[in-house]
Amino acid sequence: MNTFGTLFRLTTFGESHGPAMGGIIDGVPAGMEISLHNVQSELDRRRPGNSALTSARQESDIVQFLSGIYQGRTLGTPIGFIIPNNDARSSDYEPMRHIYRPSHADFTYDAKYGLRDWRGGGRASARETACRVVGGAVARQYLCAAGIEVTAFISRIGSASRQSASDPIEPLLAQVEEVRREQDSVGGEVTCTCTGVPAGIGEPVAGKLHAMLAAAMTSIPGVKGVEFGDGFALSSRRGSETVDIYVGSPGGIRTLTNHSGGIQGGISTGMPIDMRIAFKPTPTIARKLMTVDDAGRSVSLESRGRHDPCIAMRAVHVVEAMACMTLLDAILLHRAARW
Amino acid sequence: MNTFGTLFRLTTFGESHGPAMGGIIDGVPAGMEISLHNVQSELDRRRPGNSALTSARQESDIVQFLSGIYQGRTLGTPIGFIIPNNDARSSDYEPMRHIYRPSHADFTYDAKYGLRDWRGGGRASARETACRVVGGAVARQYLCAAGIEVTAFISRIGSASRQSASDPIEPLLAQVEEVRREQDSVGGEVTCTCTGVPAGIGEPVAGKLHAMLAAAMTSIPGVKGVEFGDGFALSSRRGSETVDIYVGSPGGIRTLTNHSGGIQGGISTGMPIDMRIAFKPTPTIARKLMTVDDAGRSVSLESRGRHDPCIAMRAVHVVEAMACMTLLDAILLHRAARW
Amino acid sequence: MNTFGTLFRLTTFGESHGPAMGGIIDGVPAGMEISLHNVQSELDRRRPGNSALTSARQESDIVQFLSGIYQGRTLGTPIGFIIPNNDARSSDYEPMRHIYRPSHADFTYDAKYGLRDWRGGGRASARETACRVVGGAVARQYLCAAGIEVTAFISRIGSASRQSASDPIEPLLAQVEEVRREQDSVGGEVTCTCTGVPAGIGEPVAGKLHAMLAAAMTSIPGVKGVEFGDGFALSSRRGSETVDIYVGSPGGIRTLTNHSGGIQGGISTGMPIDMRIAFKPTPTIARKLMTVDDAGRSVSLESRGRHDPCIAMRAVHVVEAMACMTLLDAILLHRAARW
Amino acid sequence: MNTFGTLFRLTTFGESHGPAMGGIIDGVPAGMEISLHNVQSELDRRRPGNSALTSARQESDIVQFLSGIYQGRTLGTPIGFIIPNNDARSSDYEPMRHIYRPSHADFTYDAKYGLRDWRGGGRASARETACRVVGGAVARQYLCAAGIEVTAFISRIGSASRQSASDPIEPLLAQVEEVRREQDSVGGEVTCTCTGVPAGIGEPVAGKLHAMLAAAMTSIPGVKGVEFGDGFALSSRRGSETVDIYVGSPGGIRTLTNHSGGIQGGISTGMPIDMRIAFKPTPTIARKLMTVDDAGRSVSLESRGRHDPCIAMRAVHVVEAMACMTLLDAILLHRAARW
Repeated sequence: MNTFGTLFRLTTFGESHGPAMGGIIDGVPAGMEISLHNVQSELDRRRPGNSALTSARQESDIVQFLSGIYQGRTLGTPIGFIIPNNDARSSDYEPMRHIYRPSHADFTYDAKYGLRDWRGGGRASARETACRVVGGAVARQYLCAAGIEVTAFISRIGSASRQSASDPIEPLLAQVEEVRREQDSVGGEVTCTCTGVPAGIGEPVAGKLHAMLAAAMTSIPGVKGVEFGDGFALSSRRGSETVDIYVGSPGGIRTLTNHSGGIQGGISTGMPIDMRIAFKPTPTIARKLMTVDDAGRSVSLESRGRHDPCIAMRAVHVVEAMACMTLLDAILLHRAARW
Repeated sequence: MNTFGTLFRLTTFGESHGPAMGGIIDGVPAGMEISLHNVQSELDRRRPGNSALTSARQESDIVQFLSGIYQGRTLGTPIGFIIPNNDARSSDYEPMRHIYRPSHADFTYDAKYGLRDWRGGGRASARETACRVVGGAVARQYLCAAGIEVTAFISRIGSASRQSASDPIEPLLAQVEEVRREQDSVGGEVTCTCTGVPAGIGEPVAGKLHAMLAAAMTSIPGVKGVEFGDGFALSSRRGSETVDIYVGSPGGIRTLTNHSGGIQGGISTGMPIDMRIAFKPTPTIARKLMTVDDAGRSVSLESRGRHDPCIAMRAVHVVEAMACMTLLDAILLHRAARW
Repeated sequence: MNTFGTLFRLTTFGESHGPAMGGIIDGVPAGMEISLHNVQSELDRRRPGNSALTSARQESDIVQFLSGIYQGRTLGTPIGFIIPNNDARSSDYEPMRHIYRPSHADFTYDAKYGLRDWRGGGRASARETACRVVGGAVARQYLCAAGIEVTAFISRIGSASRQSASDPIEPLLAQVEEVRREQDSVGGEVTCTCTGVPAGIGEPVAGKLHAMLAAAMTSIPGVKGVEFGDGFALSSRRGSETVDIYVGSPGGIRTLTNHSGGIQGGISTGMPIDMRIAFKPTPTIARKLMTVDDAGRSVSLESRGRHDPCIAMRAVHVVEAMACMTLLDAILLHRAARW
Repeated sequence: MNTFGTLFRLTTFGESHGPAMGGIIDGVPAGMEISLHNVQSELDRRRPGNSALTSARQESDIVQFLSGIYQGRTLGTPIGFIIPNNDARSSDYEPMRHIYRPSHADFTYDAKYGLRDWRGGGRASARETACRVVGGAVARQYLCAAGIEVTAFISRIGSASRQSASDPIEPLLAQVEEVRREQDSVGGEVTCTCTGVPAGIGEPVAGKLHAMLAAAMTSIPGVKGVEFGDGFALSSRRGSETVDIYVGSPGGIRTLTNHSGGIQGGISTGMPIDMRIAFKPTPTIARKLMTVDDAGRSVSLESRGRHDPCIAMRAVHVVEAMACMTLLDAILLHRAARW
């Protein structure tokens, strides 16, 4: 239950304040040239502490590859890696050891397992997503060579939004700055687009491409919604306004519009796949909140620990990583589809 | 890729105009009393042709159980079933044999497989969901005995919406009637709530309960979005407004509000799990549309076949079925969680 | 747990005396020409009642295909099928309703599930293997077109053995006739050889080709052992006598000998894959035996029901079917191995 | 394809001469007391270099746990671990870089992947099994607490055999000494017995307990056969001699004999599960052998590298480990079987 994927698979481990996070990437096709430098670069992009607007934890996040690569090429064998944990200040969390932080997973982990590692959120920490960025960076190198590009951008923070990655981001950052001043947090939305995916990818019925993507996106901490193409807006629209008309073109069949977000019947159309992912506000805020402890007693909580006021901001790279891994998995599955 | 679930599994087969649809329900715990009458009743609720507002196809949809049940109890062995296809008028589809209907899966199936059964949409027909209703009806009997209730209602059609199942549905039906008159179709939204789910269900990281539910819901034909709790609205909100405060109560720990929709960190909190699912408008409309044929030539299409103007309406029961199966699967997985 | 395979998958259902057996074959590559006549012929070969030496049950075993095939080609969608049960004489089993037959699964099913369908062995009946023959016959049509041949023959019954399919079978049949006269049963061994499998098939470590085959073979009722190449004899041999020397040849690299049975490190070498499968004697014999009933009381049992004195004889076709399905699955998995 | 198990899962990585081997153990029930000292002890038992009869490589094999355990208890989250590689003398293998060693996987890896890590056997090295010993040692701690004991012993080397772990082992060691003197190697057989497994474990049809065990055992490097109970001997026996008669006993129903090896219909009977596993002779021998290089040219090979003359000897602990993991997986699966 810590494994993503069917043929391209990422299995991860690690608690926030344990010795290391890490994972095993299995099913990478053999003989692929791989740049470990690029993987580290993607991990660096995710790193907190590189902006006034994100968490102050100084994570070095150096990935060490332990197998599966030889002389710059993938061997087809599993790629093991670890990311040592540094700068873990468990003592920050000591006062919250028996406390269930509101809208966090402390209570639900206890309900499930009967115990939990309370230090830094344990396994439920967003730090777990660093391993997904590594997996995504490996998958992306395959996709790039196949002409597939996956890009995400932050498209909403609070009341400020933007339509494309080229729109200015200042109004969104202003929202973050405002909630930080007010010791609050704010939700956000990430938009992700995948271009170059050929028509025919995705399995109908139980392995629909957007179902795989929806599972991947909602597995990211803090996600509360996902939509494809025109998404929820389609529930208010009419068929005559929203059907995507097929036309012939030099490159093959395409559609005039893309209300469907590049997927029909769970299978890619060859048009861009686009989706939006909704993130809740960071549940940890610097105000006093009431909650209960693990004996069910009412307690007052004042958070320390380090946190981002808007988790959506750092999740952009995780969204891309999950999309990359899901697409590669679907592409490998598709290889078995035809006689 | 036609199998849903890990421990409780539904595998289905069937093209719309083949001899039968059917499936195998595997992993049903042994010794459960099962009412086949209730299963048939759930299937009857889904049936088209019982209202002026849904498709005119007179499907009898009688499910025949072939195994796995003995003297009113489940044996623990797989439950095989078939639903014979009747009233299939393939000739309606003959003129569209080489035509890619806009916003349908005709093109993508051809792109994937190199051929397709063009009669009635083949495997991509919404008729496939009848098998899911059977699987869901079996799962529901387990859930009922465990005190878990799953209910869905149509919460939006076009510009008309309602907040709960007790609100009047006339304004929504008026939307359907209007688009039918205008030979058009309309989108819709289904809201689903699951009560009585104990805290602790769902696997963190790769098997999050809402990720399982999101995959299940987006696998339903026509779904373009899913959200949990306050969903997309959370992207505009602040943490101070939306954290769910834990309180002690006679029945255990609960939350004062439920912005999170009953799930934290991928694990159920014990509060109601609620979600909304967005459906696109029926892509088949009774107007002339331009499209291409399978040689890429531009053609004009006038649809015959039978269709519902609003697929969301008939999907209510499918949403419930997918939720029931997903919850049972998660509950069985949870049995392995504790020492 | 009633599903074989990863990409090529057979899921089956059915109790011996229920209305039908059946299954779903998923993952068949699309566009493959398929002869349903050949499938039925393979099923006919398995049928009991066509020889004095096998069970007297007159099973018609007519397979009905319900989906996944259109105009003689596979669609890529799941192939559903049923085999109606006829000539089921449940009354033969009525006296044994509460009795645990020695070396049968009556007791273990009760231990596992708390109840069972006692009629004709229920799900534990060898009749279940009819569905595997159907799945194997579909897989074989793919393999044939790829130049892969799978053949099995009965290589031992009691004290009589033969080295190849061209050796006479009379001494083996004499063994069967002898035990039948003495109201006894006898064990046997099946040898299976797969030629034409290209080098490179099979996954190292957890999906080794012979591990997949071993699981497939030991899943056949009555199997108690499996060996590859020289098998158990290798435990008494020396390396200098048994290493397979590689040599160049016009067709590529091959080995001078094949002590390894065509597999090294879990991956095919391109040499014939050969294995032997050991079957226990039919546990049902026409003599009086002591056993217990489901209350733990000592009882005496005199079997009626119909049975073969040597299950290995009818298992030859099942061995081939399991080998065909396993090879096709491994071949499809291999498609994802290379960049 | 580097993952064993369904609910209790071990995923491994690592090449013989890379920086480290390692793995992720997922699905360990939460709250289990775990002794890391015991895990290391089991790993020490496997270590080569501690006897004149096994390979001279001085592997320290210190396992480092990175997650999933807190204050001596399992958290229910994945347990990541690494075993750093030391004393790897890749230069020993340099002359064999382009050579396909007879009865090794060099050729088949190249055939599959198009490239390979030639140093020390790469991923195909038996060193990979160290990770399985770690996984097995964790599983064993669960089994011990449940009263289940898994023990294996070497039961044959060449022409010398023994019936039980209490028989003297000198004749077997004499065989090893003899082949070592003659610069040869020898095959062997391991016998494994699991006691205390309750009746009812194992899934019928596709997840039979002995099919799971057969797949686990044949995944161990060098294994060429596996049998259960009387195994291959049953193919020469009669039913009247080999049926296992059920009798009542104070502890429940048991059988007078155990020809079936503790499993009927794929489900445990409660009697000891016993199996024998056949290992081929070590393919690396210190004599000159002919073979081909990766261009298909005939070459003569003189092995250096370090090797055991009898791989069966070191495999005893791996057999136990695979049995422990398989049993725990089956036990967790069984939790979902009953209403």
